[in-house]
Amino acid sequence: MSVSTDIVIIGGGPAGMSAAVNAVARGKSVRLLSSEGNNLERAEMVDNYLGFYKLTGAELMLKFAEHTAALGITHEKGRAANIMPLGDYFMVNFAGDIIEAATVILAIGVAKARVVPGEEELLGRGISYCATCDGMLYRGKKAILWGLAPDAAEEANFLNSIGVDVKMVAKGERPSELNPSIPFISGALKAVIGDDSVKAVDLGDATLETDGVFILRNAIAPSTLVSGLETENGFIKTSTRMETNIPGLFAAGDCTGSPLQISKAVGEGLIAAQQAAKYVDKAKL
Amino acid sequence: MSVSTDIVIIGGGPAGMSAAVNAVARGKSVRLLSSEGNNLERAEMVDNYLGFYKLTGAELMLKFAEHTAALGITHEKGRAANIMPLGDYFMVNFAGDIIEAATVILAIGVAKARVVPGEEELLGRGISYCATCDGMLYRGKKAILWGLAPDAAEEANFLNSIGVDVKMVAKGERPSELNPSIPFISGALKAVIGDDSVKAVDLGDATLETDGVFILRNAIAPSTLVSGLETENGFIKTSTRMETNIPGLFAAGDCTGSPLQISKAVGEGLIAAQQAAKYVDKAKL
Repeated sequence: MSVSTDIVIIGGGPAGMSAAVNAVARGKSVRLLSSEGNNLERAEMVDNYLGFYKLTGAELMLKFAEHTAALGITHEKGRAANIMPLGDYFMVNFAGDIIEAATVILAIGVAKARVVPGEEELLGRGISYCATCDGMLYRGKKAILWGLAPDAAEEANFLNSIGVDVKMVAKGERPSELNPSIPFISGALKAVIGDDSVKAVDLGDATLETDGVFILRNAIAPSTLVSGLETENGFIKTSTRMETNIPGLFAAGDCTGSPLQISKAVGEGLIAAQQAAKYVDKAKL
Repeated sequence: MSVSTDIVIIGGGPAGMSAAVNAVARGKSVRLLSSEGNNLERAEMVDNYLGFYKLTGAELMLKFAEHTAALGITHEKGRAANIMPLGDYFMVNFAGDIIEAATVILAIGVAKARVVPGEEELLGRGISYCATCDGMLYRGKKAILWGLAPDAAEEANFLNSIGVDVKMVAKGERPSELNPSIPFISGALKAVIGDDSVKAVDLGDATLETDGVFILRNAIAPSTLVSGLETENGFIKTSTRMETNIPGLFAAGDCTGSPLQISKAVGEGLIAAQQAAKYVDKAKL
């Protein structure tokens, strides 16, 4: 079938940008999706990416962004979630919209998410990472949204708008954009409690009964992004051609494992893009 | 044992330079050895190495060279030959000198050498790629030196100086630096003739009897550079950590196979350097 986009790239760091540059060089249509911020932006000084030296991470990111901009590549900001492999194409939930893609490249960086007790056990039985995907299941029920990501308040507002009895938990102060009708608790989730399904959350100094828990982190563990994706020690397993175990799904950069370095990420981005382009060409035959 | 250099890198293209930059970043002593010219220098336009665009290959090489120079890395020009793995260190024949190295990284690019008939069969039985290494074996005997590399005339002069009855074959005109007592034939080797050992060379329109043949190419097939090195379709076989089958010997860039691209070479150079540095640290324990 013909889908709207040849190659959807998730992640706007060096691996994702290198993949985008090389996908464009191969004449493919590309969308580059990324959440806010990445590790390179916070690097104090980078000296070991050939051709640049004595630059801060932020300055190097600007050079990279000039390159992608020169090739007409737009960085689309938002949260990607629930990538569904559908045999001959993919559906990607991006900021609440659905994108159809012939291939997907995961360049999502390192998931620094520390899983809380009960999270893995109750995943899919009351725990979700995507309000727009699973919100309707909790209509008329209680939900806790634990917001670590910048768009968490919006997600809480969405749940509220479809009739979920949602409370938001996050550290610090109540976000100004949070709907005033949504209760806010300053704190963090210590554990999720339940047996067959979620019953409550432990906030350390309080326990709240709930039917569902939405955990909105910046970093998403790869296996929670694509169901059935093979990982090893939290990193995505790939071939030397950056293929994952799912046909048409590639991975590049820190998310595939050490060394967590720009050069390696950029090299893998190139390989992933070239392989994805080949995959698209073959599928069109 | 303690040797003079931690990491000797053979090849001054993107992979070798990236390896050098990263070896220095790890605090290792490095020598970067390279023959004249490389493929990138001849590239018309490079657009797919993240951070640079609309540069010619030569311009990009200049950027890379600025980076290595800023870190105090010198490009040493000359021919590397006969890398000998000696268990806990290596001996590298470089421009007639011997360098001792704890580890070696091969970043020799693609060997575009087309082997002539008889070459592989008679290798080591009258065929050599290194005059300074094997010259003495032909003292008082006849040798043909087939010169494709810029330093070929010097090598012929060397053979002549130690008493080899050498004739030089090369396309084009007689090199001005060739010793006037050495006969020069404008042409190319079509085949090497022999049974147990070399008997003659076929120049197409003539056959010359000889005891030895020195073939001086710019590109050296990896397996002729290091005895026992595993290759596959002419490329060096490596693990994902850029290890070859010989402990302490690493490889990076085009010589390890496709894609023959800068980003991939730079990424592999990084990994090879980091692994070589680890190898050195372990050996020093």
